[in-house]
Amino acid sequence: MARKKLYEVSGQLSKVARGVEKADLVVKNGTLVNVYSGELLENIDVAVTEGRIAYVGNADHTIGEQTKVIDAQKKYIVPGFLDGHMHVESTMLSVTEFAKAAIAKGTTGIFMDPHEIANVFGVDGVRLMHEEGQQLPLKVFTTFPSCVPATTDLEDAGASLGVDDIKAGLQWENVAGLGEVMNFPGVVFGDEIMTGEIAETLKANKAVTGHFPADDDHMLQAYLASGANSDHETVTREQGLQKVRLGMHLMIREGSAWHDVKEVIKVVTEDKVNTDNISLVTDDVYPQTLIEKGHLNHVVRRAIEEGVHPVTAIQMATINVARYYKLEQDLGAIAPGKCADILLMDDLSNVEPATVITDGEVVFANGGLVKEFPTFMYPEHIRNSINLKSELTAEDFLLKSKSAKTATDVNLIKIIENSARTEKMTATLNVIDGVIQPDLDKDIIQLACIERHRGSGQISLGFAHGFQLKKGAVASTVAHDSHNLLVMGTNTEDMAFAANELAKIGGGMIVVCDGEVLAKVAMPIAGLMSDQPLEVVVEQVQGMEAAWKEIGSPLNAPFMTFSLIALPVIPEIRITNRGLADVTEFKLIETEIN
Amino acid sequence: MARKKLYEVSGQLSKVARGVEKADLVVKNGTLVNVYSGELLENIDVAVTEGRIAYVGNADHTIGEQTKVIDAQKKYIVPGFLDGHMHVESTMLSVTEFAKAAIAKGTTGIFMDPHEIANVFGVDGVRLMHEEGQQLPLKVFTTFPSCVPATTDLEDAGASLGVDDIKAGLQWENVAGLGEVMNFPGVVFGDEIMTGEIAETLKANKAVTGHFPADDDHMLQAYLASGANSDHETVTREQGLQKVRLGMHLMIREGSAWHDVKEVIKVVTEDKVNTDNISLVTDDVYPQTLIEKGHLNHVVRRAIEEGVHPVTAIQMATINVARYYKLEQDLGAIAPGKCADILLMDDLSNVEPATVITDGEVVFANGGLVKEFPTFMYPEHIRNSINLKSELTAEDFLLKSKSAKTATDVNLIKIIENSARTEKMTATLNVIDGVIQPDLDKDIIQLACIERHRGSGQISLGFAHGFQLKKGAVASTVAHDSHNLLVMGTNTEDMAFAANELAKIGGGMIVVCDGEVLAKVAMPIAGLMSDQPLEVVVEQVQGMEAAWKEIGSPLNAPFMTFSLIALPVIPEIRITNRGLADVTEFKLIETEIN
Repeated sequence: MARKKLYEVSGQLSKVARGVEKADLVVKNGTLVNVYSGELLENIDVAVTEGRIAYVGNADHTIGEQTKVIDAQKKYIVPGFLDGHMHVESTMLSVTEFAKAAIAKGTTGIFMDPHEIANVFGVDGVRLMHEEGQQLPLKVFTTFPSCVPATTDLEDAGASLGVDDIKAGLQWENVAGLGEVMNFPGVVFGDEIMTGEIAETLKANKAVTGHFPADDDHMLQAYLASGANSDHETVTREQGLQKVRLGMHLMIREGSAWHDVKEVIKVVTEDKVNTDNISLVTDDVYPQTLIEKGHLNHVVRRAIEEGVHPVTAIQMATINVARYYKLEQDLGAIAPGKCADILLMDDLSNVEPATVITDGEVVFANGGLVKEFPTFMYPEHIRNSINLKSELTAEDFLLKSKSAKTATDVNLIKIIENSARTEKMTATLNVIDGVIQPDLDKDIIQLACIERHRGSGQISLGFAHGFQLKKGAVASTVAHDSHNLLVMGTNTEDMAFAANELAKIGGGMIVVCDGEVLAKVAMPIAGLMSDQPLEVVVEQVQGMEAAWKEIGSPLNAPFMTFSLIALPVIPEIRITNRGLADVTEFKLIETEIN
Repeated sequence: MARKKLYEVSGQLSKVARGVEKADLVVKNGTLVNVYSGELLENIDVAVTEGRIAYVGNADHTIGEQTKVIDAQKKYIVPGFLDGHMHVESTMLSVTEFAKAAIAKGTTGIFMDPHEIANVFGVDGVRLMHEEGQQLPLKVFTTFPSCVPATTDLEDAGASLGVDDIKAGLQWENVAGLGEVMNFPGVVFGDEIMTGEIAETLKANKAVTGHFPADDDHMLQAYLASGANSDHETVTREQGLQKVRLGMHLMIREGSAWHDVKEVIKVVTEDKVNTDNISLVTDDVYPQTLIEKGHLNHVVRRAIEEGVHPVTAIQMATINVARYYKLEQDLGAIAPGKCADILLMDDLSNVEPATVITDGEVVFANGGLVKEFPTFMYPEHIRNSINLKSELTAEDFLLKSKSAKTATDVNLIKIIENSARTEKMTATLNVIDGVIQPDLDKDIIQLACIERHRGSGQISLGFAHGFQLKKGAVASTVAHDSHNLLVMGTNTEDMAFAANELAKIGGGMIVVCDGEVLAKVAMPIAGLMSDQPLEVVVEQVQGMEAAWKEIGSPLNAPFMTFSLIALPVIPEIRITNRGLADVTEFKLIETEIN
């Protein structure tokens, strides 16, 4: 979909505004949520032509014989929601399938950080997701991933991005800024790549989206003075207030695993600061959440539930986002010249759109999509991205002891339910025939991380405590941030089976037991995303959750905790393709303790 | 002054924020006007290095032996004021001399539209004023003049600007957008130059500053849909409310001749709309006003007097302006990374800065400037820009009748005190020796407009009613918008004398009587601006006002009314170098009626 620029159609808009030509579409008789003035205005019509708004008010003079007229029947006319920070990969969906789900919930524009695919396919991966986005009724802006790979010393990702990649990427149409600059110590301490990327973004006068999860005020101000100008990692009211005061665009997050609105919105409801530099974002939303709660509309709803005035909450999901990204000429409001991205809503507390219009066309109405979405085909190498040196065997997963003893001490990873953190612990395990044995009774399960980008055959072995598996094995190629092939199992035969089966389907997540697949979610797009619609993926994920329970794990969303077990930038200990990573010490350590 | 970019100094800022290196300057113990949160925060320090703010809060950790410490003594710490729309030429001062006066009043940044010099010298004139601005402690941004000349059919300006000029100019450093697009009918009706200029500005993602003085809602929305996105011509609350609702950045103006705050600020105080898309501007300020009332601080003061909360009023002169121009990364607030443009104020109702810091250096303190300003020399052709074919004689001003009668009817210009409008009237005048005579008893005074850019010798003759001159003559090269040489007098000898004397000094304004100069304001910079300091210019202007009175005119600021008598875009009738212009009919007419 080649959207036209304002200056390409302004002549036509002007004619329609004056009534000398007629509108393509008029939405009549609604109550406008005016995000500029902060008012609700009754009896408003919106005239649209060439995909943009030509006139707002009494638009009778713009209605001709060919004009499609939608009677809003006093419904609220709301600007389409803009999600200022999110990762499409978290939804497990392709950009196209995500767009279908998001538009149905009133999201008409996103600023996605395709950080996951960047770790697998670098610039090519970013370009493909970006290109997929450009043809959709959803407006897809990209913030170019800034920290790929997350570390260079502890793991091997599929690709890396440097300053030149960022510089080039920022020139692509609809790349709106730099993706969340997670390496905040790097920024603060002057890492060349980080400061180089920020410099290029500032030169382009685009947004440097930040990521500052710490409490240190001196570090925060150093980070701000380095050019990062937003944050979505705020979890306390105090952090939020400080960031607003310092001019950091505060993105208050409500994702599937992040529930920050309740606390952070107090900056608005209790501290009563000006809200124009605050927005609402989702960051990471899982497929189930999209169906059960919605997308950005759920975040708006949560803000309203916490006492924010509906118009203010809507501003935080529309005009504030557009201004932050310097795109207010096109987006974020219902006004002459803006893209005709319009929601009709019956009420402003449940925040469920009855009708969604993007670029002047009705896309969602009467509970369903009413517009065909184009298909986007990823090339074969993207759809077949699990590169193993050879088929894995049970042998590959045997962790040999270096000593001749019958028991040995090991470092292992203790996971914490509903947390991304882990704890480093040690245990004594039996050694049989020279092989270190798991201990299911003590919930010590074997782990493996296999390099899967270059087929190097590299494999690291370790143990985890906390998942409570009793049988079978699991595997995942969603394994932040390098997305190698992660395997965990009660026996090495099932571990090898799980890994091989997952590789065959192009990656994703799998649960096996005794040589049988119990459940799987195929994610052939880079091993990160399904090519199926939301409903199918949700069903598959539910099947997978049930399978995790079946093999013994009582955890909430154990596959999410599992997928983070390879992320060596969150304390305390992780497993990567190179081995166990002590994140506190920032070094690799041996599983077996001498 | 080569200001450093944020990314050039962010490493140093980061070190100072963390206290590992020390600040150049710390302002201690003030009450921060926080334009982000909308709060007043006590006991705040601001640490500065490399001309930018590194840290805000308790900055003791940034103070070293070399750090200059200013004790704010609980004064308010206010971001420097940004004037979002103004014409330096109106002050009659060079950019440098204006900057001295403005900084003393707390203005640290301006967005100037050098429309007048553009009409005389085109791109070269714009470039010179822009360059002059770049070396000053005042931050000078230019909005590139969009409507030069004002008309092509009725007059001859010294230059014209086209789409290519705008396109090239938008690439200059610190050109922030397109200057006020006065030709709003041209925009709305699709004039190629207007729409081309707007297109180039939108492509550069810069501001398209507007000018919409009408009441027609359909035209307004057509203008907005064409891309213009601000307005400073609003004179009623209703217009203001409508513009805010439509997302037009509302610039509320208080200049020397415009007093719009009282009425338009009701949008804030009574309609209580969100204020983040509203700013305060001066547009045109005369030298006397700079001394008597101040600059943008006077507009802020006026807003506060009308009931606006001081923090809100300050937001409208700082962060809102920076956001509108997409420069909030550098300007508009006291926060890490921003340029250290800081005012200290004893109270927020009189809005008089005690200290003004720009780029981290104290520029104004204890009632005076404490920093040397560089001098800027305009080239000779700019300083000697009154090009006459030859010295003028009394003969040149004789208006010959075409008939042989002793009396004849003429069209003439009736001026209206304190208004830019004129009225077309007719009168019967005596003809002596074939020459049409003025009639001082009836206040019908002779006018002339002489082409002065190319020395063509072209001269047009006419009559004015309303100025009440009894003797002598006046001349001005400030003659909007084409700035030809305008002369008015009771006798042709004095008219020739006034014109010749004014040409000799490079233009400006002059009052003569009986072959003697009574008063003059030399404006050798393009015939539009003095090269003298404010105090000198004010004295000269006062002398000129007295001289106008001495030769008979009791009007308020008659030289301002006079300078507008050649502007053929305001009804009803004007005199240009080509003759009398009937603005209503948009055509030239003869002075003598057949």
